[in-house]
Amino acid sequence: MTKTLKVGLIGCGRIGKVHAEALMQVDTAELVRVCDVYIEAAQAVGNKYRVPYSDNHHDILMDAEVEAVLICSSTDTHAQFIIEAAEAGKQIFCEKPIHLDLAEIDRALAAVEKAGVKLMIGFNRRFDANFRAVKSAIDAGQIGDMHILKITSRDPAPPPVEYIKVSGGIFLDMSVHDFDMARFLTGSEVEEVYVQSAVRVDPAIGEAGDVDTAIINLKFEDGTLCVIDNSRQAVYGYDQRVEAFGSKGMVECDNNTPTRHRLSTADTISSPKPLYFFLERYMDAYATEIREFVECINDGTPVPAGGQDGRAPVVIGLAAWKSVHEGRPVKISEIE
Amino acid sequence: MTKTLKVGLIGCGRIGKVHAEALMQVDTAELVRVCDVYIEAAQAVGNKYRVPYSDNHHDILMDAEVEAVLICSSTDTHAQFIIEAAEAGKQIFCEKPIHLDLAEIDRALAAVEKAGVKLMIGFNRRFDANFRAVKSAIDAGQIGDMHILKITSRDPAPPPVEYIKVSGGIFLDMSVHDFDMARFLTGSEVEEVYVQSAVRVDPAIGEAGDVDTAIINLKFEDGTLCVIDNSRQAVYGYDQRVEAFGSKGMVECDNNTPTRHRLSTADTISSPKPLYFFLERYMDAYATEIREFVECINDGTPVPAGGQDGRAPVVIGLAAWKSVHEGRPVKISEIE
Amino acid sequence: MTKTLKVGLIGCGRIGKVHAEALMQVDTAELVRVCDVYIEAAQAVGNKYRVPYSDNHHDILMDAEVEAVLICSSTDTHAQFIIEAAEAGKQIFCEKPIHLDLAEIDRALAAVEKAGVKLMIGFNRRFDANFRAVKSAIDAGQIGDMHILKITSRDPAPPPVEYIKVSGGIFLDMSVHDFDMARFLTGSEVEEVYVQSAVRVDPAIGEAGDVDTAIINLKFEDGTLCVIDNSRQAVYGYDQRVEAFGSKGMVECDNNTPTRHRLSTADTISSPKPLYFFLERYMDAYATEIREFVECINDGTPVPAGGQDGRAPVVIGLAAWKSVHEGRPVKISEIE
Amino acid sequence: MTKTLKVGLIGCGRIGKVHAEALMQVDTAELVRVCDVYIEAAQAVGNKYRVPYSDNHHDILMDAEVEAVLICSSTDTHAQFIIEAAEAGKQIFCEKPIHLDLAEIDRALAAVEKAGVKLMIGFNRRFDANFRAVKSAIDAGQIGDMHILKITSRDPAPPPVEYIKVSGGIFLDMSVHDFDMARFLTGSEVEEVYVQSAVRVDPAIGEAGDVDTAIINLKFEDGTLCVIDNSRQAVYGYDQRVEAFGSKGMVECDNNTPTRHRLSTADTISSPKPLYFFLERYMDAYATEIREFVECINDGTPVPAGGQDGRAPVVIGLAAWKSVHEGRPVKISEIE
Repeated sequence: MTKTLKVGLIGCGRIGKVHAEALMQVDTAELVRVCDVYIEAAQAVGNKYRVPYSDNHHDILMDAEVEAVLICSSTDTHAQFIIEAAEAGKQIFCEKPIHLDLAEIDRALAAVEKAGVKLMIGFNRRFDANFRAVKSAIDAGQIGDMHILKITSRDPAPPPVEYIKVSGGIFLDMSVHDFDMARFLTGSEVEEVYVQSAVRVDPAIGEAGDVDTAIINLKFEDGTLCVIDNSRQAVYGYDQRVEAFGSKGMVECDNNTPTRHRLSTADTISSPKPLYFFLERYMDAYATEIREFVECINDGTPVPAGGQDGRAPVVIGLAAWKSVHEGRPVKISEIE
Repeated sequence: MTKTLKVGLIGCGRIGKVHAEALMQVDTAELVRVCDVYIEAAQAVGNKYRVPYSDNHHDILMDAEVEAVLICSSTDTHAQFIIEAAEAGKQIFCEKPIHLDLAEIDRALAAVEKAGVKLMIGFNRRFDANFRAVKSAIDAGQIGDMHILKITSRDPAPPPVEYIKVSGGIFLDMSVHDFDMARFLTGSEVEEVYVQSAVRVDPAIGEAGDVDTAIINLKFEDGTLCVIDNSRQAVYGYDQRVEAFGSKGMVECDNNTPTRHRLSTADTISSPKPLYFFLERYMDAYATEIREFVECINDGTPVPAGGQDGRAPVVIGLAAWKSVHEGRPVKISEIE
Repeated sequence: MTKTLKVGLIGCGRIGKVHAEALMQVDTAELVRVCDVYIEAAQAVGNKYRVPYSDNHHDILMDAEVEAVLICSSTDTHAQFIIEAAEAGKQIFCEKPIHLDLAEIDRALAAVEKAGVKLMIGFNRRFDANFRAVKSAIDAGQIGDMHILKITSRDPAPPPVEYIKVSGGIFLDMSVHDFDMARFLTGSEVEEVYVQSAVRVDPAIGEAGDVDTAIINLKFEDGTLCVIDNSRQAVYGYDQRVEAFGSKGMVECDNNTPTRHRLSTADTISSPKPLYFFLERYMDAYATEIREFVECINDGTPVPAGGQDGRAPVVIGLAAWKSVHEGRPVKISEIE
Repeated sequence: MTKTLKVGLIGCGRIGKVHAEALMQVDTAELVRVCDVYIEAAQAVGNKYRVPYSDNHHDILMDAEVEAVLICSSTDTHAQFIIEAAEAGKQIFCEKPIHLDLAEIDRALAAVEKAGVKLMIGFNRRFDANFRAVKSAIDAGQIGDMHILKITSRDPAPPPVEYIKVSGGIFLDMSVHDFDMARFLTGSEVEEVYVQSAVRVDPAIGEAGDVDTAIINLKFEDGTLCVIDNSRQAVYGYDQRVEAFGSKGMVECDNNTPTRHRLSTADTISSPKPLYFFLERYMDAYATEIREFVECINDGTPVPAGGQDGRAPVVIGLAAWKSVHEGRPVKISEIE
C-alpha cells in the first residue's frame, strides 16, 4: 500500500498557498493542519482544504499526526522554526534563506543533525524544467568538461527600499539564488569571488547601502569560470537564463514566455516578453519541488537541496560583499 | 458576497479528473457530487475531494444543490445526458463532440433551448494561450483583413483501428477541432469544402474506410481562404500551429515545448520536441475552460463556445467526407 | 590544366549584371563579350569588365570564342534566342520562363535537342541554401516518405497592373516558381491541380483578369499532397518558406533576415523582418547558380534544371487557370 | 562626375584577396597595382584583375597614380608600412593589429599625423550587420542607459602553438577584437580590467605561456560593466554574440548560420550550427569595410575606426595580462 505523508503548513501567505495547492496534486501526501500568525490567512487556507487551522505553529509541531512541516513563514523565523520542528521530530521543508547570519544557520543545521530528521531548502529554481534540462545535459556529458558558466538573473523591478534595507542586500537577497544555481550546475564549490557593482537603477538603493547592478565572477574548485550578471530592473520582465560551455559543446536556456506566437507587420516582427516574475516563471517548479520533498521523505532518499546547500550561498554572498567593499578578489576561505 | 457555483461531475475518467482538478483552482466553484458508470472511478475522485459519489448520473441530476454539470462521459451518451440535464434545469458543460449524427445534435440543442439553460461545448483549443494570442491579434486588427488561414494539426500517433471504426473517421474525430479553430479565428462561416486525402500512415486505417493524411480547403463567407493539413502521425510529437495572414501582416504560433533549452555540439544544435499530445499541450487550456464556464454561469454572460459551435464543425466534417467520396468541392448548403 | 569557359552575356539589365558579377567569382569562367538592345547598358557592363560590347546578340552568337551564353534579355525573346544560340552551337543558360506558350517552348526545346547543346533554366530558388538544406534532408531520408509539402510564397508588393496584364497572370508569373520548387523537392510529377483564389489585395488586379491571393493544391504521382499559398502582398516582406512532412519527421525553413538581433523592451520583443525581395533573398543563390552552370558545362555533367524543368511548371500553371475558371480539380493530362 | 579612388594592394594572401574582391564591388574605386613578397601570390591576383604586380611594396608606394593602400601583409610589417605609406602621402587602410608594441604603434600614429593622411584600421566586426544593428539600437536610445554589456567570443579551434608563441597571447591576439567591440558599442573608454583565466583546451597552450579560456571584466568610464568570455575552442563553431542591457531594455544578437532550416524527428529538433569561422561569418563585413574606407577617402569624412581605435585595445590587452599575472583588478592608467 502506498504511504501518505501527513503534512503541516506553517505560514499561509503567498508562497504557503502555492505549496498547499502543490500538495493537492501529490497523491502520496495529505495536508492535515495549517497555521499563520494572521489567523485570517490560516482560516482561508484551512477552510479551502477542510483542515484545522490556528495562529500558532506549536499546534502543528505538537500534532502527533503531522510527519512533515513546510516552513513558509517570514525569513526571520526560519532558523528558529527549523530548530523547533527538528526537536519535535518532524521532517522539514523550509523556504530559503535559512538565515542571513551564519551562526544562526549553523545552530539550525546542528539541531537538524542531532534530531536525525531531513531538511530540504526550497531552492525552487533547481526544479525548473529549463535548468533541469541544462543540468541533465551537463551530467550526461553532452558538453564535456565545463569551462565557462554564465548566469543571467534580472528582476523585473526592484523591491521597496524598506525591504532592501533588511534584505541583506542584493548578494544575500537576490544573487543567493544564482550562487545556488552555479553550485547546482557545476556540482562543485566556489573558491574565489570577485564583484563589480554599481547603482544604476535607483539612487535610493545606493543610499540604503545596497547596489542594484552587478557582475559576479566565481572561480570553482573544478576549474569552471562562472560569471553572473544581476540587475534589479529588467523592464522587459524576469530574465533568467543560463549558459554552460564546455569541451564538447554548449547548453543554454532561454526564458519562458506566456505564448509562442509572433506577429509580422510592416514595422517589425514581435514576440512575447518573458513571464513577468518568479510566481509566473516558477509555478511548475514549486509543484515539482513539493512533490520531490514528499517522495524523498516517503522513500527515504536524500533531499535534492539540503542544509549545506542552504548555507553555502550565504557564505558566497558574504564574500561578494567583502569583494565590493575591498575592491579585490576574495577567497571563500576568508569568510569561514 | 461572491457566488459559488455547485458543480456535479458526470464521468470520472481521464478528462473528468482533469476538470475536477481545474475546478479546485476556481474560487467561485465547488465540486459537490461525482458519478461514473465504473464505481471505482467515481470512488477515487469522490474520496480525493471528499464528496459523495455513485455510479448513476441521475444522482447528480436529482441533487437539488447541483447547479451545473460537467458531462465527461463517453461520446455516445453526450446528447442524451445534455437532454436530461437540461430537463433537470442544470447548466451544462459538455465535452465534444455532442454527437456524430446531426439529428441527435439538433434534438439536444432543442432541449437546451426549451429549458433555457446554458450549454458550453469543451472546445479546449479555444482556451489555449497561443491560439488566444492569435485571435487577439486578429480581433485587434493587427493583421488587417484576413486573406489566408493555415492550420497545421497532426497527432503524434494514430488511435487503435477499433477506435477509428466508430470515430466517424478523421474529419469528424480529428479535423472537427480544426474546423472549430477556423470558425473561432475567422469569426465567419464555411461556404465550401474541398479535400485531398490519402492513406499514408497505416493501410489498416484505409481498410477501416478512413484516411490518415489530408489537406482540407475551406472557403469562408468573409472571403478567407483556409487550408488545414492533418496527419494521424507526426513522429516528433503533437503538431498544433496556426498562421493567419492578412492585409496588414501575419500572426502565427509555434508549438509549446517542455523546455526552452538548446544544445550546441560539434554535430548540430538541438532543441526539444513539442509537448507530446493533447493532455500535455492543453492542460492549462482545460483549466481556463472550466474557469470561464463557471464565470459565465455565475455572471450570466454568454458561453465562449455554445451549442451551435458544437454543431457547425460536424456539418463541415460531413461535407469533407462528401468531397472525398465525390472528388469535388462541396458546398455546405448541400449538407443541411 | 583547368578549363576556362568563355561566356557571352545577352542582356545587361538588372539580372544580367547580377550574373556578370557572379561570373567574376568563378575561377573557371571568363566573361568575354556582352550585349544589350540598349547600348548604354551594354557599355556600362562592358567597360566595367573590360570586354567588347554591342547592341546586337548576333555579335555574341557569331563570336567563335564564345562557348556559352547567358540569356538575360526580356522574356518574349527567350525562346527565340535559345533557338538561335542552339543553332550557333552555344551552351545555354536562360532566365525563366522560356515562354508562356507551350508551342514556343517545345520549339525551343526541339532546337536544343537537335543541336546537342545544354540548356539550363535559371530557377534560382533551387540554389538557395535553405531550400537545398530541405532537399538534402529529404534526399537523405531524414523525413522518410514525404506525405505533405507546404510552400508559402508571398511577394512584398504587387507589380504594376500594366505588367500583370502581359505576365500570364499569377500562376504563370509567380506560382510558376513554386511549381518548380514542388517538383524539385518531391522529385515527382503533378497529376492534378485544384485552386481556390481571390482578389484581396487590389481590385485593379481583378479587373485585369488576374487574382492576387491563391491556395493551390497539387497531387503528385508519388502520393505527396502539396499545398501552395500565394499572395501578391505580404507587408512584412518577401515570404518564402517550405515545410516537408513525412513518415519520419519534418523539415522546414524560415525566411532569411538581414540580421539576427532582437530587441527586448517594456513593450515587446522585436526582431528583423525578412529580406525585402528576391534580389536580397536570392543574391547568393544567383552566384551559386552561375557557378554550377559553368561547372556542368566544363565537366560535362547534367544541368540541375533543364528544358523539361522549364516546361513542366508552365503546364501546371495552365492547369491552375483552368481550375479557377471551372471551379474543379483539373488533371495535368487535360492540358497536354 | 563621380570620383574613382585608385588603390594599391600590399599583401595578396587570404585577406588581401578578400579585400580585392570587395573592391570590385565598389563603383567608386579601382584596383591599380598589387604586391606580395611571394611573387606567385602577387601574380595570381594581378592576372585576375589585369593589373601590374610585383614582390616589392615600394612599387606601390612610388606609383603616383596610387592614392590609397590596403596593407594586408604580415602583422610585423604593419607599423613600418604605415610609416612608409604615410611618408609617401597615401591614404591608408591597415589590417589589425598595428603592432603588439605600444612604442611602435605610437611611432606609426605619429607618422600618420605628420603626413596628414587618413588611417583606417580593419576592425571588421564593426561592419557586421548584427553588431551594427545592436549599435544602432543603442545609439537610438532603445535600451536607454547601458548598464551591462556581455560579449561572447569563442573561436572554433585554436591556432598552432607556434603561432600562439608569437601572437602576443590570447588578450592581444583574440580578445583585442572584443575590446574594440566593447569600445565601439559603449562609445566609452575602459578604466579598469580584471581577468580570470585558465588553460582548459590544450596544455600546450599553457606551456607556451598563454591561456585558452578567460572571463574579462571591463569597467567603463560611463559606468557600463562589461564582461567578455573567450575560448580558443567552441566545437560547434565560431561563437560571436553580444548582449547590451540598459535602463529601457536589452538588445542582443545571435550567431549567423548558413541556413534557417530545422529538422524535427522522433529524436529531436535540430538546426544548423553557426558559420564556421571569421571568413564565413564576416565575408559581408569585409566588403562593407572596404566600401566605407573608399567612401571616407572620396568624401573626406572621418574613418569609422582610426589609429586611436587601433591603439586602445592593445593597452587593454596589456592590462589584461597584468591582471592575470598579479591576480587583481588593473587600472588602465597603470599601463600608459
